Amino acid sequence: MMNYSLGKGEHQNWVVSDVNFSEDSLGKSEAIMYLGNGYMGLRSTTEEPYLNEVRNCFVAGTFNKFDANEVTELPNIADVTRVDIRIDGKRFSLEFGETKEYVKQLNLKTAELIRTFDWVSPQGKELRFHFRRFVSLENLHVIGMKMEVEALTHPVVISFDSGINSQMTNSGAQHFHEGERRIFDKRFVQLIQTTTESKIDVVVNTVHKVMVNGKELEKEPIMEMDRRKVWLHFETELQQNDTLTVEKLTTVHTSRDKEAGHEPYDLDRLREISLTNLRQAFAKGYETLFTESTAAWQTKVWDRNNFHIESEDSYDLLALRFALYHLTIMTPAHDERMGIGAKAFSGEGYKGHSFWDTEIFILPFFTYSNPEIAKSLLKYRYHGLAGARKKAKENGFDGAMYPWEAAWPTDGEVTPVWGAVDIVTGEQTKIWSGFIEQHITSDITFAVWQYYQITNDQEFMDKYGYEMIFDTARFWASRLEWNEAKQEYHINCVVGPDEYKEHVDNNAFTNHMAHFNIKLAMEYYRELKTDRPELFASLEATLELEKAYTLWTEKIDNIYLPQPRHEDLVIPQDDTYLSKKIIDLEKYKNQAKVGSLFREYNLAQVNEMQVTKQADIMILFLLLENKFGPEVKQANFDYYEPKTLHDSSLSLSTHSILANDLGHEEMAYSLFKRATEIDLGPAMHTSDHGVHAASIGGIWQSVVLGFGGVRMLDGKLRMNPRLPKHWRELRFSINWHGSPLHVEITSDTLTIKSETKDYVVVEVFGQSYQFVEEVIININK
Amino acid sequence: MMNYSLGKGEHQNWVVSDVNFSEDSLGKSEAIMYLGNGYMGLRSTTEEPYLNEVRNCFVAGTFNKFDANEVTELPNIADVTRVDIRIDGKRFSLEFGETKEYVKQLNLKTAELIRTFDWVSPQGKELRFHFRRFVSLENLHVIGMKMEVEALTHPVVISFDSGINSQMTNSGAQHFHEGERRIFDKRFVQLIQTTTESKIDVVVNTVHKVMVNGKELEKEPIMEMDRRKVWLHFETELQQNDTLTVEKLTTVHTSRDKEAGHEPYDLDRLREISLTNLRQAFAKGYETLFTESTAAWQTKVWDRNNFHIESEDSYDLLALRFALYHLTIMTPAHDERMGIGAKAFSGEGYKGHSFWDTEIFILPFFTYSNPEIAKSLLKYRYHGLAGARKKAKENGFDGAMYPWEAAWPTDGEVTPVWGAVDIVTGEQTKIWSGFIEQHITSDITFAVWQYYQITNDQEFMDKYGYEMIFDTARFWASRLEWNEAKQEYHINCVVGPDEYKEHVDNNAFTNHMAHFNIKLAMEYYRELKTDRPELFASLEATLELEKAYTLWTEKIDNIYLPQPRHEDLVIPQDDTYLSKKIIDLEKYKNQAKVGSLFREYNLAQVNEMQVTKQADIMILFLLLENKFGPEVKQANFDYYEPKTLHDSSLSLSTHSILANDLGHEEMAYSLFKRATEIDLGPAMHTSDHGVHAASIGGIWQSVVLGFGGVRMLDGKLRMNPRLPKHWRELRFSINWHGSPLHVEITSDTLTIKSETKDYVVVEVFGQSYQFVEEVIININK
Repeated sequence: MMNYSLGKGEHQNWVVSDVNFSEDSLGKSEAIMYLGNGYMGLRSTTEEPYLNEVRNCFVAGTFNKFDANEVTELPNIADVTRVDIRIDGKRFSLEFGETKEYVKQLNLKTAELIRTFDWVSPQGKELRFHFRRFVSLENLHVIGMKMEVEALTHPVVISFDSGINSQMTNSGAQHFHEGERRIFDKRFVQLIQTTTESKIDVVVNTVHKVMVNGKELEKEPIMEMDRRKVWLHFETELQQNDTLTVEKLTTVHTSRDKEAGHEPYDLDRLREISLTNLRQAFAKGYETLFTESTAAWQTKVWDRNNFHIESEDSYDLLALRFALYHLTIMTPAHDERMGIGAKAFSGEGYKGHSFWDTEIFILPFFTYSNPEIAKSLLKYRYHGLAGARKKAKENGFDGAMYPWEAAWPTDGEVTPVWGAVDIVTGEQTKIWSGFIEQHITSDITFAVWQYYQITNDQEFMDKYGYEMIFDTARFWASRLEWNEAKQEYHINCVVGPDEYKEHVDNNAFTNHMAHFNIKLAMEYYRELKTDRPELFASLEATLELEKAYTLWTEKIDNIYLPQPRHEDLVIPQDDTYLSKKIIDLEKYKNQAKVGSLFREYNLAQVNEMQVTKQADIMILFLLLENKFGPEVKQANFDYYEPKTLHDSSLSLSTHSILANDLGHEEMAYSLFKRATEIDLGPAMHTSDHGVHAASIGGIWQSVVLGFGGVRMLDGKLRMNPRLPKHWRELRFSINWHGSPLHVEITSDTLTIKSETKDYVVVEVFGQSYQFVEEVIININK
Repeated sequence: MMNYSLGKGEHQNWVVSDVNFSEDSLGKSEAIMYLGNGYMGLRSTTEEPYLNEVRNCFVAGTFNKFDANEVTELPNIADVTRVDIRIDGKRFSLEFGETKEYVKQLNLKTAELIRTFDWVSPQGKELRFHFRRFVSLENLHVIGMKMEVEALTHPVVISFDSGINSQMTNSGAQHFHEGERRIFDKRFVQLIQTTTESKIDVVVNTVHKVMVNGKELEKEPIMEMDRRKVWLHFETELQQNDTLTVEKLTTVHTSRDKEAGHEPYDLDRLREISLTNLRQAFAKGYETLFTESTAAWQTKVWDRNNFHIESEDSYDLLALRFALYHLTIMTPAHDERMGIGAKAFSGEGYKGHSFWDTEIFILPFFTYSNPEIAKSLLKYRYHGLAGARKKAKENGFDGAMYPWEAAWPTDGEVTPVWGAVDIVTGEQTKIWSGFIEQHITSDITFAVWQYYQITNDQEFMDKYGYEMIFDTARFWASRLEWNEAKQEYHINCVVGPDEYKEHVDNNAFTNHMAHFNIKLAMEYYRELKTDRPELFASLEATLELEKAYTLWTEKIDNIYLPQPRHEDLVIPQDDTYLSKKIIDLEKYKNQAKVGSLFREYNLAQVNEMQVTKQADIMILFLLLENKFGPEVKQANFDYYEPKTLHDSSLSLSTHSILANDLGHEEMAYSLFKRATEIDLGPAMHTSDHGVHAASIGGIWQSVVLGFGGVRMLDGKLRMNPRLPKHWRELRFSINWHGSPLHVEITSDTLTIKSETKDYVVVEVFGQSYQFVEEVIININK
C-alpha cells in the first residue's frame, strides 16, 4: 500500500513509501521506485528474492537482438542486488515470521531507496533490518548498497550469499555470452558478459565490506562460481544487540561507454578502468559516494528546476517531484546516440525502444528546462536519419520515414510484429504500428521546430534541424496519395494515435501534422535560400531541395485536412470513424484494468466501434493550438472523451491540458490527478511492466503547460495560467531563448523574473508584455 | 525427510516417499522421483512454484549449443508442470498456512508421482489436495497430470493459471528461438520452439479438462499469451465438500523423433501428428492412459527382470527397484543415436552427456538383462566413431579416440573446458578430462567385448563390434610413447579414473586397459583373417588392418603395465602417486559434502597428495579380474581405500563388489548401503543437480555382480554368490548367450533355471556345472 505523506521535515513531500510488504504487488514499488541515472536503471527489487519479483538492470544503448526473428532490445544485465540471507540456517523471507513497521521508501530528493523493518523469525528471534541503495548521479557507473542487521533479542548465526549473477534473461531471452568470472584479492569480484549479436562487452565488478559492530569480519568468505554466476558466502554470529553492516559497491562499464569508444577498443583496458573505478569507490565507502550523488541531484535537478506547489493537497507537489525524478533517471543525457525508452529502465516493457512519447510528451520538459539535454535527445533522432532513410527506401518513399519504434539510431524500424492473443482466432495479434503508424515522422519535426523556437539554438538548426525538417517533408510529399474523385491528396491505410483503429484513411492528426511538416519545410526552404545561401547549397547537395520544393508547392494546398462537421463541429478522426457503431464503455473505463475490452472483443471487432484508445484529435489541438477555435475544441472534447478508454498512458495528461485550455480547471485537475495515478495511484499492478515515461512527462506538461498555461505559439511565448482552486501558488523555472525565467503564479498574479538583462516578450490572456528582469501581472479575472 | 516404508500391500517396498515439505530441500525429491521413459525426462517439481525449485524437462537427443564457446547440451524444453493456484485470490503455497499429512511419493511399480496433503489457508479454510502425474511408457510422447482439490470446511474461490511456458533456460542459457503459440478450439494449447544452433523443432501441446464434482466447467477460461508463454486462466467457486478435478494432458514431439525423420521433414506435419496424439489422449483421459503405461511397466520392466530380495531390511529390495526404475527411464532405448546422460534427465548437471559411466557402470545391467537395449547403446557408440575419429585426427592420432563426454554421436568431444573456482587464484579451474582422460576409449571396447561374450551376438560384431575394437586399438597404438631409458611404451600425461590426479604418467588403469584393447584387436584380427576372409577384407579396406597389426605386434609386449610392488604388493596408481604426501582425510570423508577438500586446497595442491577421488586400481580389478590374485587385491584395497574420498558416485559400488570378491560380505553390504544412499540417503542435497546414473547402475552391479557373484570371465559365465547375512534369498533373471536364466540364491543353494533346452555352463566357486533347464548347487561352505 502506497503512502506519500511519510516524509518529515526537510523531506516532506519528497518520500514515496510502500508501507506493507505484499508478495502479490511487488511490481509497483520495484518499478516506481526504480533507481538510475540515465546511464543505467536498476529496478528496485528487494535484496532477498521472491517468486513474483522482476529483477532488472539495464544500461542505455546496449541493444541486442536475440535472433533474426526478434527485434533488438535492452538486455537485462547481470544482477548484483540479490542477497540470499539465512538466519540460523533458515532462509530469511518476509513471507514467514512476523514483520513489524515495514516501510520501503524512495527519497526523491536524495534518490536513495531505503527499506526498514523488524522481523521476528519463525523461531521467535527478532532482528532489525535496514537496507539502503542508490545509483550515483555523480559517478554514473556506481551502484551503492548497504545493509544493517541488528539482533534485537537473541544471538543468531547470520549468513548470506552475494555476488554477481548473469543468469538473468529478458523473459527467457538470453542476450549474453557467458563471459569470464574472476575474484581478485579474494574480494573484488568481476564478471564479464558480451551481447550475442551486437557484441557489446559489459563488465560488472562488486566488492563487499562486512562489519560487526563496525569491525571488519576476519573470517574469509567462501568463494563460489556456478554457470554465469560468481559469489561469496559470508557467515558470522551476532550476539544480542550486535549489528552486522554490509556495504556492497558495484561498478558497471560497457564497451558502448564513450571512454571505451576510442579505437582500438580493448576489453582488458575496460576491465582495468572498471576495476580501478571500483577500488576508488571502495576507498570512499557508501556514505561518501552517496553524499556526492546527493549533491549532484541538488544542483543538477532540484536547484535548476526550482519547483514549488502550494496546495491543500501536498501530494500534487510530490507527484511533480516524482515526475522530475523519473525524467532525470530515464534520460541518457550523457550520450547523444541514445534515446528514452517508453518504460524508461524500469522494466522489459517496450524493450527500451523510443516512440513519439519522447518528442511529444517528454521532450518539452527538457526543451523548456534543460535545453542541452533536449539537444542531445534530438541529436539521437538526427543520428536516426540513417535508419529513417533506410525505412523510407524499404517502403518505396523518399526522404526520412522515422521508425515507429527506435533503438540504436542506425537500426531503423524495430517494432515487433506480433502481440497478445486474439481471443477469436487463438493466434497472436499482428502489430501494425511498425508498418503504418506514420505520424512519428512529423512528431519529430514538430519537436525540432519547438526546440528551435523555444531555445533559439541556431547552431543546432544549421547542423541538424533543417536537414531533419527537409528530409521528413520529402517523405511526406512522396507518401501522399492522389484521390482522383476528390481531387485531393489523401494519406490512406494508417494507424493514428488511436491505435484501436487500424488501416484507416485520413486520420486527422496524421494529415494535419504531415501538412504542418511540409509547410514548415517550405518556409525554411525560402528563408535559407534567401538568407543562408551557403547552408542552402550544402543541404541542396544531399537533399535535392529544389526538386523537393517543386513537389511541395504542387501538393501542399491539395492535402485533405479533416475539418469540423457543419452540424456539430466534430472533426472526423478518420474517414470512417463516425459511421461506426457506438457501444457502452462504462465497464471498460477502469484504469486498473487497461485493455479489459480485449477480453470480450478482438482488435478486428474493436476496429468497427467508435472506441478510442487515447487522445487523438485532442493531441492535435495541443500541438497545433491556433488552428482551431475553442468551440471546436469543446465540441470534440465532448464527443470523443466519452468514447476514449484512456488505455494509453499518453491520454489523460493531454486531456487535462485541453480541459484547462477550455477553462475547466477542476476537470483539468481531476484529469491531472488521474494522470499521476497511472503510476502513483492505489492500483498496485499498473506499473508491473514498468513506469509510463510519457505519462510522467505528461505530469510536468499538465502542471507547466496546463495549469501554468505556458505555450510556445508561432514562435512566441504565451502564459495563460489557471491554477486549480486549492493551489495557492505554483513556482517553476523555464528557459526562453536561452534565458532562465523564474515563474510564480498565484490565483491573482503572475510574476516572471528573468536572469538576464534581455527583453522578454510574453503574451498573457491575449495581452502582450515586454519586460526586463521582472514583470508582475494581475491575472485575477 | 525421506521414508521408504510407506508402500502397503501390493505396493510394499515400491514407494519412495518424502514425508514433509521443506523448501530447503526440494531438489532431493525433484531429482530422485523424476519421471520419464527414455524419450523424455521430467523433473518432479511441484505444481505450485517455489524459489528453490529446479523445473526441468529434457528430451533425449535434442542437443544444442548456446554459442561457439559453450559445449552442446540437452536444453530445458517448455514447462507444462507449473500451475499457479490461488485460493480466494491469494497464492497457494505450502510456505504459508498449515500443511497436514503431507506426502510426496513415487510409486516405482506404476511410475506415478503422487502428492497429497490437507492445507489450511492463512484465512483458516481447509482444503484437501491430491496431485498425480506420470510420463507414459506406452506412448512416449505423453505426460499426464491430475489435480483434485476438495473444499473441506468453507466455500472458496479457486483459480489457476496453467499452460505452456518456454521462458525456461539452462541456468540462463536460452537454447530456443521463440516459436509460434496458438490455441485451438479455445482448449488445445500449442507452443513451438526451435533450437538455435541444431535447429530441432519441439512441439508441445496441452489440454485441460476441468470439472467440479465430475461435471465439466461451463465458464470458459481466459486465454493469455506473453513472451514465450501461452496459458489459460480458470476460475470457479467451490462449495464445502465440492471437489475440483483438473486433468492436464500434454504431448511432446520433436523433429528428432524417428517418425519425423523421413525426408522431407515438415513442421506442419509434426504439428498435426502431435495435436492428433493429444486429441486421442484427451479422448482416453488420465486413467486410461495411466493404466496403459502401468501395463507397459509391468511387462517391459518388472516381469522381465523378475527381481526379489528377501532381507531383514526390506529397504534393500526397494533400493534395487529404485535402480531398475531409473535404469529404465534414463535410457533412450527407442533411438540408437542417443546415449545415457550422467545425470540421466534429472537435472542440468553434465548437460546430458555420456561418459564411461554408461559402458562400465550402466551397460552391464542391459547386457545381462535386456540385450536389445544394450545393443542400441553400443550402436550409439558405433555412430560415435565419426566423432572419435575426428578427435583422434585433431590430436594427431590414428583410429578412434572416443570423446570423454559425448552428445550427438557425430559431435566428437564436448567436455567443457572450465569448472569451479580455484580458491587460490580466484579464476576458474581448467577441466583437463576432455583433453587427457583417455581411458574411455578402451572402456568402450571392453563393453563391446563384454556384450559379445554374454550375448553371443555375432551379427552385432560383424556389423559394428569388430570395427570399434580395431579402430580403438589403432588409436592406442599411435598413442603409446617410447621411453628410451626404460625401453618401454608409456602413456604419459593423462587423467585416470581418479580425477584428482592430472597430467600423470602411466596410470595403471589406463595402461592395462590400453593393453587389453590392443590385445583383443590382435586376437580378432587373427580370427577374422583365418575364419572370416570376406569380413576381414571389408574391414581391411577401411581400417588398414595389416599395417595396424604390424604395429600392434611390435608394441604389445613392450607396454609398461604397472605391477604390484615387491614389498607390499601395492600397484602404483601412476608413476608419482606413491611418492606424494599423505594427509589425514577424516574430515573430508563425508558423503553429504562431496568436494569439501576443495574448500581448503586447489586442484594443483591436491595433485601433490595421496588423495584419490574414486576407485582407480579397484575398477581395474573388477574389469580384468583374472589378472591379479586375491592377495594383491586385498593389499591394494587396504592401501587405497583409506586414501579414497569416494567423491565420485562411481566409487562405492565398485568397492562393494571388490569387498565381496575378497570375502568381506558385511563390508560389501555396508558399502552397498552407502552406494544406495548417494541418492536415497538422508542427506537432502546430494541429488540437487540430478541423480547419479552410474551409481544407480552400481546398485544393480553390487547386487548381481557383487552378492550374486555373476561375472563373465574370459567368455565364461561364473557365479560365486555371497549374500549378506541377513538376506535370506536373492532372485533375479539374466540372459546368457540369448537364454534367459532365472537365478535363486539362498545362503545354502544356488538354483539356476534356463528357459531354453540348450546346455548352460556355469562355474561356481571354482567348479564347472553343465545343465539343461535347471541346476541346484549347494554353496554352503
